[in-house]
Amino acid sequence: MARELRSPLAVSLGDPAGIGPEVIAKCWDNRDAFALPVFAAIGDPRSVTAVWDGPIELIEDPRQADAAFDFGLPLIQINAPRSDVPGHPSVAGAHTSLDSLEIAVGLARSGSASAVVTGPVAKEQLYAIGFQHPGQTEFVAERCGISPANVVMMLAGPTLRTVPVTTHLPLSAVTSHLSAALIESRGRATLRGLQRNFGIAEPRLAVSGLNPHSGEGGELGREEIELIQPAIDALIAEGWRVTGPHPADTMFHAAARAHYDAALCMYHDQALIPIKALHFEDAVNVTLGLPIVRTAPDHGTAFDIAGQDRADPRPMAAAIRMAAQNAALRAEAA
Amino acid sequence: MARELRSPLAVSLGDPAGIGPEVIAKCWDNRDAFALPVFAAIGDPRSVTAVWDGPIELIEDPRQADAAFDFGLPLIQINAPRSDVPGHPSVAGAHTSLDSLEIAVGLARSGSASAVVTGPVAKEQLYAIGFQHPGQTEFVAERCGISPANVVMMLAGPTLRTVPVTTHLPLSAVTSHLSAALIESRGRATLRGLQRNFGIAEPRLAVSGLNPHSGEGGELGREEIELIQPAIDALIAEGWRVTGPHPADTMFHAAARAHYDAALCMYHDQALIPIKALHFEDAVNVTLGLPIVRTAPDHGTAFDIAGQDRADPRPMAAAIRMAAQNAALRAEAA
Repeated sequence: MARELRSPLAVSLGDPAGIGPEVIAKCWDNRDAFALPVFAAIGDPRSVTAVWDGPIELIEDPRQADAAFDFGLPLIQINAPRSDVPGHPSVAGAHTSLDSLEIAVGLARSGSASAVVTGPVAKEQLYAIGFQHPGQTEFVAERCGISPANVVMMLAGPTLRTVPVTTHLPLSAVTSHLSAALIESRGRATLRGLQRNFGIAEPRLAVSGLNPHSGEGGELGREEIELIQPAIDALIAEGWRVTGPHPADTMFHAAARAHYDAALCMYHDQALIPIKALHFEDAVNVTLGLPIVRTAPDHGTAFDIAGQDRADPRPMAAAIRMAAQNAALRAEAA
Repeated sequence: MARELRSPLAVSLGDPAGIGPEVIAKCWDNRDAFALPVFAAIGDPRSVTAVWDGPIELIEDPRQADAAFDFGLPLIQINAPRSDVPGHPSVAGAHTSLDSLEIAVGLARSGSASAVVTGPVAKEQLYAIGFQHPGQTEFVAERCGISPANVVMMLAGPTLRTVPVTTHLPLSAVTSHLSAALIESRGRATLRGLQRNFGIAEPRLAVSGLNPHSGEGGELGREEIELIQPAIDALIAEGWRVTGPHPADTMFHAAARAHYDAALCMYHDQALIPIKALHFEDAVNVTLGLPIVRTAPDHGTAFDIAGQDRADPRPMAAAIRMAAQNAALRAEAA
């Protein structure tokens, strides 16, 4: 797979005190078993050596990763104050993780890297150094010159892809944040993303209802009638293949999943409960709507287990594989 | 399994125009493959013959089912006007389904049947004949002399059991219907049900959060702090094994499920999305808190496919098996 890409992937280590360095190093260890393409890690090498005994190949440009990959973990070094005590996040570590992210995005923007995979960061520490975004996704969008409102977060696993229309809101605030325009724009971004990142020429989108049994014709809520159906109709009128609103509880079993390429869900847990129930070890966070390919594992810094050799590298491996697949499909289409 | 029960199960056919008669007849067809105990169907035999060519053994008392079961589907006949056109619900059919349900419950109450399994009914038609309950569960509770507020609906599959604290409410109404007292009483009923129906001496209950990431310490909603944690604390103070509030998206994967016997969820889809994603073919609706055992398949009348020999009997088979298991465990404990 690696040989099909023009350039390696850029993988930011994330917070140096989190599990990012460990799972990325373990991905290199298991690069053959995980069928991984060539990638270059970006961050503080001390955060890797603190948790891993393997070889590191310091490089200065992702193009050197190809030659280095057989000998060690290729790593582009960030100059940073020490911040590598696993499990102990710091302001210095937040600077390091932000610098790594910025360089990774820049490399992908310039074409030196095929795609960006981001390790998990600690938002609390980032906020302490003046970071203004809700998360890495919005930062990446802005660095790419895209309004965060126009990118969508997709959770993608082997048999299911879901996209939440609203994300980090209290459940009681979901209804007031939903609108037909928002559902429609998220749906359109998802459909275009299925084309660009996944190579599906005529993507099929299944849209969930908000309420139990999709509102039972208005008996259990009217959002399906007033917001969701109009958004579906608008997308269909543009020629997209869209169905729904579907009762959320009956759209995620195997037979139902065969009928669509992605499910557009109304709120965070409606999208994340099924993807994590079915694909906890290999669900990937894919940002759609960007000029570059960006993926991330669907987990956080896990400070509580950092440095204990307990972190599971499979989600990071899945994120790296999917970044390569998406980048290859985009390159083919270009 | 059948031989361990003192008496057969009573299985109401549900709406004569729905898929109930078909799936119950198919259960008898496949009684060995599905490992089913002896059961007696209750309803209008014409609703069965309309969709099935197999033998029916008309009986008058469940005790006759044991001898009849090898020769045909034992059926206790309800005298009813014709209402057997598959896919075409009618007021006459609603009367038949209600009479069947009432007799099934009466047989279980008297001990003539070990448990009740209910076929799916059409609520719209039931309301047309004056039925006052939200569903069969509340009707059964009242016939058993139990306040519907004290029974809980559990969805039980081979690797997951979930209980919704609130059920058929618009999503926007969930928060205002939640209270610490309600969560606590549903939790207690669930724990007792795990003991009585499932024979788990020291049941473990995992309680979900309401908001994304379980509210992130109050950043994304305060219900976890103000309602859910106090309910958990109250149950723990009584000696129950209860954990949470857990972020809902990370509590349903296989490794997480190993840590509890049931998940108490805050709303309908939070409980039903994971159970149906994982166990669509064999999730069973179990009513806890009753003096009798009552189960049901977790699907509706499916009028759109009734009479086309397309209905899947596996959920009904799972409901019959679970009713027998629960009844046997209760009989042992009694």
